[in-house]
Amino acid sequence: MRQPRIVLPPDEMPRQWYNLAADLPAAPPLGPDGKPVDPAALTAIFPESIVEQEVSPERWIDIPEEVLEILLRWRPTPLRRAFALERYLGTPARIYYKDESVSPAGSHKPNTAVPQAWYNKQAGVERLTTETGAGQWGSALSFACSQVGLGCKVYMVRISYEQKPFRKAMMEVWGGTCVPSPSPETAAGRAILEQDPDSPGSLGIAISEAVESAVADTTGTTKYSLGSVLNHVLLHQTVIGLEAKKQLALAGEGAPDVVIGCAGGGSNFAGLANPFIADRMAGGEIEILPVEPEACPTLTRAPYVYDHGDVAGMTPLLAMHSLGHTFVPPTIHAGGLRYHGMAPLVSAAVKEGLATPRAYGQLECYEAAVTFARTEGIICAPETSHAIAAAMDEAVRAKEEGREKVILFSFSGHGLLDLAGYEAFFAGELHNYPLPEEVLARSLAVLEGLPRP
Amino acid sequence: MRQPRIVLPPDEMPRQWYNLAADLPAAPPLGPDGKPVDPAALTAIFPESIVEQEVSPERWIDIPEEVLEILLRWRPTPLRRAFALERYLGTPARIYYKDESVSPAGSHKPNTAVPQAWYNKQAGVERLTTETGAGQWGSALSFACSQVGLGCKVYMVRISYEQKPFRKAMMEVWGGTCVPSPSPETAAGRAILEQDPDSPGSLGIAISEAVESAVADTTGTTKYSLGSVLNHVLLHQTVIGLEAKKQLALAGEGAPDVVIGCAGGGSNFAGLANPFIADRMAGGEIEILPVEPEACPTLTRAPYVYDHGDVAGMTPLLAMHSLGHTFVPPTIHAGGLRYHGMAPLVSAAVKEGLATPRAYGQLECYEAAVTFARTEGIICAPETSHAIAAAMDEAVRAKEEGREKVILFSFSGHGLLDLAGYEAFFAGELHNYPLPEEVLARSLAVLEGLPRP
Repeated sequence: MRQPRIVLPPDEMPRQWYNLAADLPAAPPLGPDGKPVDPAALTAIFPESIVEQEVSPERWIDIPEEVLEILLRWRPTPLRRAFALERYLGTPARIYYKDESVSPAGSHKPNTAVPQAWYNKQAGVERLTTETGAGQWGSALSFACSQVGLGCKVYMVRISYEQKPFRKAMMEVWGGTCVPSPSPETAAGRAILEQDPDSPGSLGIAISEAVESAVADTTGTTKYSLGSVLNHVLLHQTVIGLEAKKQLALAGEGAPDVVIGCAGGGSNFAGLANPFIADRMAGGEIEILPVEPEACPTLTRAPYVYDHGDVAGMTPLLAMHSLGHTFVPPTIHAGGLRYHGMAPLVSAAVKEGLATPRAYGQLECYEAAVTFARTEGIICAPETSHAIAAAMDEAVRAKEEGREKVILFSFSGHGLLDLAGYEAFFAGELHNYPLPEEVLARSLAVLEGLPRP
Repeated sequence: MRQPRIVLPPDEMPRQWYNLAADLPAAPPLGPDGKPVDPAALTAIFPESIVEQEVSPERWIDIPEEVLEILLRWRPTPLRRAFALERYLGTPARIYYKDESVSPAGSHKPNTAVPQAWYNKQAGVERLTTETGAGQWGSALSFACSQVGLGCKVYMVRISYEQKPFRKAMMEVWGGTCVPSPSPETAAGRAILEQDPDSPGSLGIAISEAVESAVADTTGTTKYSLGSVLNHVLLHQTVIGLEAKKQLALAGEGAPDVVIGCAGGGSNFAGLANPFIADRMAGGEIEILPVEPEACPTLTRAPYVYDHGDVAGMTPLLAMHSLGHTFVPPTIHAGGLRYHGMAPLVSAAVKEGLATPRAYGQLECYEAAVTFARTEGIICAPETSHAIAAAMDEAVRAKEEGREKVILFSFSGHGLLDLAGYEAFFAGELHNYPLPEEVLARSLAVLEGLPRP
């Protein structure tokens, strides 16, 4: 009988994370003075153990036993063979997807939420603040904080907060609190609300609020946690790709021909792709595709620059592709993947030609999502649909070329909290929104005067 | 390292279902003439293969290969050890739960939806009608129909339809259609609406509508599908208990001391419990607890009688515990488990003293659900919370008695589509509703004049 699910036994779960920064050094973060940031400065918002990982030159970093024990509740995640989708497409390609939707929060995000919460707890921290866009990250951190015994405060981008009313309830079930951002609780939020009381919010704004409220606690028992972009976050996600490699071998496959992941801040993409980028740097012929929305085309249309991670300029300058830190995605855009920047490691991989970004409109993505649900049976998050659309295109290309290609993509999360987006799609309320040239130009103007990598 | 998840390899998935009816013969269904129903009469709404299973005296029935291939996408499901909950309770009991929430529809329901859809497809059927209460079953059947290529029409109890707006979208993503019941589409629905235009609906009403609309298709290409109660449905669910037995052995445990499942129509409970009821009939000392809401106390307060499965009296009379086929659960009741009757096999097991029912108020259940989410990390469906509440009580009792009891319960589904119920709980809008004596008496009056088993 054909096996639609390749199961890796729990004792085969990776015991170490892979750090791509050891093999692909990126330009360092800069402080307000334009000089590389002293890592010690980061301890205002992160515990030392996290800062060490952020700047570590080590290729392999041990996963603590207590973190493993929590991850083992759902890891290793299944690698699935998309037999039904292949049949539907009539493709000779073999399509595999790594299913990160099986975590308690329904996405890949707990892979880093758990170690971040744990390291903070070890350091004596009592509560974490964070931001969330589509809500996957805020849910994951609330879950993780409940598991190690930390408080959790989430600033959620207002447009998503309104589109996804149950994300707040989900965080509250785990004991977290969630407020729409911009909020009147912080100076950063108040500044935005003064200019625009109806601001739909952005990740850049929500990050400013979360960082401000962590720094404002002068007892040092509140720290900040970020769900993507930074090196340590990508590091924690590499269990995805490391497991997928073992599972492809179990399925009798060699290296994949194409590796695909959706990319917002970059952690889901990098989690799957970074171990394969290492193979590619070692000479492997692997196409690696980060996929983003055409409404927020960070990798495909924005320059590689130094920019802040947040709207208020509270974070160091990061070397990355960026639409400009004041960028606010159009409200018509229903999914996540709405960050103005991109992980420095992912940006570096693209700059080095190791990964080739693509952008898709949301209509193609929802169409792919519905096809996927009706073939493979799983309802995906709007973010994940970008990877599915690209994987389907690759499978159709393989059919045209008559090639038995092996396609691997990250199924980053399920869409059970995102059904309003599907309703809007069925109702014909969604349309594509390729970012207009003039909007892009205006958005990039904020980068003027900042240093270039 | 401790293993929080006991994984059964895919090739250990059961190849046969266990049929408790072979060991525990129940009183036969009766037709309108008061005589046992000729199975052939059931082919008006079910294909012959399903009718054969419904009346089969065989102890073991093969699972078709093509059904197995779909089930293998998520089965065997994990058996989880509740280390975090045990620690929180300080109990010497070892608590295990069989996690059926990992299916694409998020509950145990696809275990029978898939074979039912498949057998219908084999028989040349083109579409299925059904009812759904909390929405788990309608979602599962829509999923299953999408997998084998059938149309699917779901009549959803109106109060749930309104409380859970995204269930409809979920079914539509899989290609199904969903209407609130009572609906103006059927004679049964219109009759109810005439009496009470604001009727919140009931499963009994929705079943009448679904059966009527299947029978109304004179081409014979529309059949009806039921998500619980009947023998063949319970049969399909026994993979739960059969897998759990193997997994307990893998974990080094003998037989469990207590087996717990929530019970609405009885299929989730029976899926886990029936293989253990067989062990108990063979002399094993196992406590077996079906748990129901005190707002719909079928097993704990209703008599064992002959009653119709639906409000319009279109189904045969079934020998079961029943609150009366016109019973409508109070609108304050937020969860599922709202059926007026109970599976004849479960009713027979209770009558024979093989299972000991319990009822819980919804406040205890939501409290248990929140504790569970903050310890074990998974957000449960309101139905599932009943089993959790009972398991926690048993674990506390084990602590008081100083006994190392093994407790096993069915985690029937996740609550990601039920977060409105949690919101209402946090807002203090829920209260308990032990069914008042006079309401019960009024409801039971409909049973007068019907034969007794």
